Amino acid sequence: MNRKEFRDLASPTEAREAIDSLSIEGGVERVPLENACGRVLVARLDAELDVPGFDRASLDGYALNARDTFGADEADPAELDVVGVVHAGEEPEVVLESGQAAEISTGAVMPDGADAMVPVERTDVGGDVNGGTDENGESGEDHESNGTVLVRTSVAPGDNVMFAGADVAAGERALGPGTHITPRDIGLLSALGVDEVPVRRKPRVGIVSTGDELVRPGGELESARGEIYDVNSYTIAAGVEDAGGEAVLYPHAGDEQDEMEQILREAAAECDLVLSSGSTSASAVDVIYRVIEEQGELLLHGVSVKPGKPMLVGRLDSSAYVGLPGYPVSAMMVFRTFVAPAIRRAAGLSEPESTTVTGRMARDERYGEGRLRLMPVGLVTDSDDGGAGDGDTLVYPVDKGSGATTSLAEADGVVEVGPETDYLERGEPVDVQLFSPDVRPPTLLGVGEDDPTLNRVLDRLDNPRYLSVGSRPGLRRLREEIPDVAVVAGPIGREHGLEATELGRWERDWGLIVRAGNPDEIDGLDDLVDRDLQFVNRTADSGLRTSLERALADLAEERGADQHDLTTEINGFDIGLRAHESPARRVIAGTADAALGLRDTAERLSLEYVPVGTQTMRVLVNPDREDKASVRELESVLAEGVVGDVGL
Amino acid sequence: MNRKEFRDLASPTEAREAIDSLSIEGGVERVPLENACGRVLVARLDAELDVPGFDRASLDGYALNARDTFGADEADPAELDVVGVVHAGEEPEVVLESGQAAEISTGAVMPDGADAMVPVERTDVGGDVNGGTDENGESGEDHESNGTVLVRTSVAPGDNVMFAGADVAAGERALGPGTHITPRDIGLLSALGVDEVPVRRKPRVGIVSTGDELVRPGGELESARGEIYDVNSYTIAAGVEDAGGEAVLYPHAGDEQDEMEQILREAAAECDLVLSSGSTSASAVDVIYRVIEEQGELLLHGVSVKPGKPMLVGRLDSSAYVGLPGYPVSAMMVFRTFVAPAIRRAAGLSEPESTTVTGRMARDERYGEGRLRLMPVGLVTDSDDGGAGDGDTLVYPVDKGSGATTSLAEADGVVEVGPETDYLERGEPVDVQLFSPDVRPPTLLGVGEDDPTLNRVLDRLDNPRYLSVGSRPGLRRLREEIPDVAVVAGPIGREHGLEATELGRWERDWGLIVRAGNPDEIDGLDDLVDRDLQFVNRTADSGLRTSLERALADLAEERGADQHDLTTEINGFDIGLRAHESPARRVIAGTADAALGLRDTAERLSLEYVPVGTQTMRVLVNPDREDKASVRELESVLAEGVVGDVGL
Repeated sequence: MNRKEFRDLASPTEAREAIDSLSIEGGVERVPLENACGRVLVARLDAELDVPGFDRASLDGYALNARDTFGADEADPAELDVVGVVHAGEEPEVVLESGQAAEISTGAVMPDGADAMVPVERTDVGGDVNGGTDENGESGEDHESNGTVLVRTSVAPGDNVMFAGADVAAGERALGPGTHITPRDIGLLSALGVDEVPVRRKPRVGIVSTGDELVRPGGELESARGEIYDVNSYTIAAGVEDAGGEAVLYPHAGDEQDEMEQILREAAAECDLVLSSGSTSASAVDVIYRVIEEQGELLLHGVSVKPGKPMLVGRLDSSAYVGLPGYPVSAMMVFRTFVAPAIRRAAGLSEPESTTVTGRMARDERYGEGRLRLMPVGLVTDSDDGGAGDGDTLVYPVDKGSGATTSLAEADGVVEVGPETDYLERGEPVDVQLFSPDVRPPTLLGVGEDDPTLNRVLDRLDNPRYLSVGSRPGLRRLREEIPDVAVVAGPIGREHGLEATELGRWERDWGLIVRAGNPDEIDGLDDLVDRDLQFVNRTADSGLRTSLERALADLAEERGADQHDLTTEINGFDIGLRAHESPARRVIAGTADAALGLRDTAERLSLEYVPVGTQTMRVLVNPDREDKASVRELESVLAEGVVGDVGL
Repeated sequence: MNRKEFRDLASPTEAREAIDSLSIEGGVERVPLENACGRVLVARLDAELDVPGFDRASLDGYALNARDTFGADEADPAELDVVGVVHAGEEPEVVLESGQAAEISTGAVMPDGADAMVPVERTDVGGDVNGGTDENGESGEDHESNGTVLVRTSVAPGDNVMFAGADVAAGERALGPGTHITPRDIGLLSALGVDEVPVRRKPRVGIVSTGDELVRPGGELESARGEIYDVNSYTIAAGVEDAGGEAVLYPHAGDEQDEMEQILREAAAECDLVLSSGSTSASAVDVIYRVIEEQGELLLHGVSVKPGKPMLVGRLDSSAYVGLPGYPVSAMMVFRTFVAPAIRRAAGLSEPESTTVTGRMARDERYGEGRLRLMPVGLVTDSDDGGAGDGDTLVYPVDKGSGATTSLAEADGVVEVGPETDYLERGEPVDVQLFSPDVRPPTLLGVGEDDPTLNRVLDRLDNPRYLSVGSRPGLRRLREEIPDVAVVAGPIGREHGLEATELGRWERDWGLIVRAGNPDEIDGLDDLVDRDLQFVNRTADSGLRTSLERALADLAEERGADQHDLTTEINGFDIGLRAHESPARRVIAGTADAALGLRDTAERLSLEYVPVGTQTMRVLVNPDREDKASVRELESVLAEGVVGDVGL
């Protein structure tokens, strides 16, 4: 193998500095006001006009001369001739003289000769109220509303008038450079009549996926060839958009150098930053390495961080370049830790407030490799006044291995563990960088057996997380006091010593799943033992497997045989699959004749179900979490499901 | 006037309930994976396939039978025949038999007959290392890499192999209904090959601006007719998008009932919710009221909240309807408090964590109207370990009046003051609902004189806020200890008793701004007094006006005249405009011959400058904030500006 060895790993600080030294700013563009929210202003905007542009009535009422109201009050109103009306959006047609007033609407232009206004509530129509003669005044022109008004208060010049420029005056600094435009700023820009603003262009980030085995989601997968769906492209693209960049996806590049070079250079020509990502194969990494080294400039190769060691930083033509690790979790964490801050900076955005949460370690965690560790973690709250950030948040490492895409979905963020730290103690406070500001820790954390009824129960809860690790590992984790509940199937065995309250239970029918119509005429476990059939089992963690083993023990006793001898007669007894539907899918695929499974699954997949037994599913609650709202909610959903037939 | 009186105001709770009773959900739509981030899943997504779809090598190395490595270690390696190579993305061409191994890449399909793999680091090429004869083995076919491998460790079945379905198993619950899709979920969906997801459609929110006086930003404004730019349409639209809705702007509706009805019904037919907004005129509100009452259903009219009393809630055809107050700040606060939560709920989104900040009142605030008050507030931090939410945030009411659009830009959020509260004490903790999650409190709060040099200084700071209230009000606020700094111009007078350190200073030239080429041949203040010229002054708050008055006092003394007599000789001495450029713009407009202003302003606007004097600008610092980082930064920008000629 020609794999390059990474010598002299750079420190995380050096990696950050190398990335900072790359220029990934996107320049300037003008965007219409309606698209300006969330963007970053590049230049100061000064007011080019007065707001309002005229002296403006603040209320509905009468424009007048303040001196004509001198001494007026409720008992002794001033009577003024009404000589006109001014509506909003009209140019006043009257000029007031002493002793005159004009009816005026909120927002209308104050007529010349008026220096104040009185709200309608402090006036009465002249004549009507006083029971006067209702004589038409001679003073006005032919206005419909002529007559007089009684003003029952005195006002000072300027009262209830917003003078031109009182809100914003021409020449005033309205918004500074670097302003992150939010709806309130849109208001100010609208008031100034600005319909287009100069903002930072979003940095264009090209994403080049590498690896012959990758297929874009939606495409046809050939598992026999080891094809897998491309996880990194869309995930990193979403991360880029989250950080304020514009993501551009390029076609997959294979491991061939000319093709790789062509795609990377195309991306470099069109983007401010190129990220390569996707393949974990050493040869693809090697090819990229050669392209960057020969055609660009390689600033560093390999960073002392776990995961993320095989990281590249450099330049290609006029673009910046960062090579991310191939495994999705590693790629996401390295992106989140090293690349997203640089994109955010180039976009002119600061780190969102909501991206960091403080919590306590839910269990001890050892680590002593002397490298910075980016530890993916999940969050769970241990009480309700809890919620993120106030110390009631528990943090547990998610350790499915970096190859697992589910560790991404099961983790909420990353804890950076410094190279000097070899031990994190249970209860120790840690800062969690959420994967994105919108990430919400789950309201309920459950672990245990997987089950279709349970899936429907979970659908009725708000944002639960369920880790289907199997019944026994579920009980083990409940004893570690991390999850809120564990769901266990069938006979529990020695682990039953756990003192946990049962929150609810239901029964499920299990047996053998066989082809539609049962062409092999399989009647039960006897057939598996006695005939040449291909069987598929579940893993030993599964409660279903435990029930199967009990049933086989019963069968052995019935036959007076040894259980071990019985199971060795079953072809495929040792082929244990992890999820409740996977064995049945082997039957569909034709690679098995019978599979361990549930009646529910057989029905869902239109297969035949051969009954063997019934199994009790129990939901057990962590004693410390019995009062948590989400636990109570789960309890009531379970109770409903049993009492009222709500189709669980 | 036909204004309707609002009787029986609804309580804020009733208003919320009325809005909640309207159905504004947008239904379901399918979006491509690349647009799914931020959207809300409507249905559970189960895994339809195993991930990986095959047994997969976790590392680069050799696939083999675990039992062939039994007992192998560094000292005594097992030697296996290498019979083939499997790359990622290839179907294996070999089937291993006992004693055989195949070179394998990370991510490649484990060949049949292999049940484990050994990483390349724990192997050596056979022969080479032992200095053997390098004989070609007979065991393999014609593979290029035939030979043997020395395995220096023993492995168990399954070691370094990720079995099919180990990451995600078919039938597993992948994402629950209501999941707010973030980049990590995009990863899981990608792995499952999902390229389209069913999400909640964003609620469509139509915005109908009313009022004959409104002009869309970018259009031509006729101030003489009292026209103003439409602030609410784009601001509310931005708020709608922020809350997860889709905003649709409709053409302005005038106050004519048929036109209003037509536009409202068009919006109702196309949208889930219609918001009317824009006009403050009572007649427009009346017309809308009639349309909703006659053509739809009015649920409530008027809410006991300040501002926001004239709020309408109802239905029009199949759409929900809410009428917002006309003034921008009122409209924004009512939208934020009552409407945005309903849109967010309809969109399936929860309130973002970062939208609430806790702070302490910066000053006493009285209020006793017995209605819920939505109080717009600004934020300032009083120390650096400060930042939002940790008690070092001071909260001050922004009280420019609800007609002012700048109160929106100068406020960071809203404090809800309950109807029973008539007094908020300085230091009392309050919760601030930020206007939007992206709102950042300023790093520096300054108040005082406006000045073009100052504007350039501010441009060099990160996110400052400056309220150009004038020199004297600036000093007054500094004494109240709210702002970080005050900027004062010219002679300060009695207020100089303030014990504040000066952070920096600069000089500015002031005088008369006259038409380009000075056609009136104005030489100085004498001309204003002696000739029939139209002058425009600044307001009494301005330091420039103080300097002008001093200069006139000197002139009076020189002439042996009374200063008052002198100023009454100046036409327009009492016309005081608020901002430093506004008087000069009157000269451009031809309505004035001379304006009080700065040399800088004359140059910027290509007018002529007639020197009168020089004035010192002083930056004074709040004694409690001298160590604040942004204050120190301001100091160093000021120092640079004076020492090195950086063009301030």
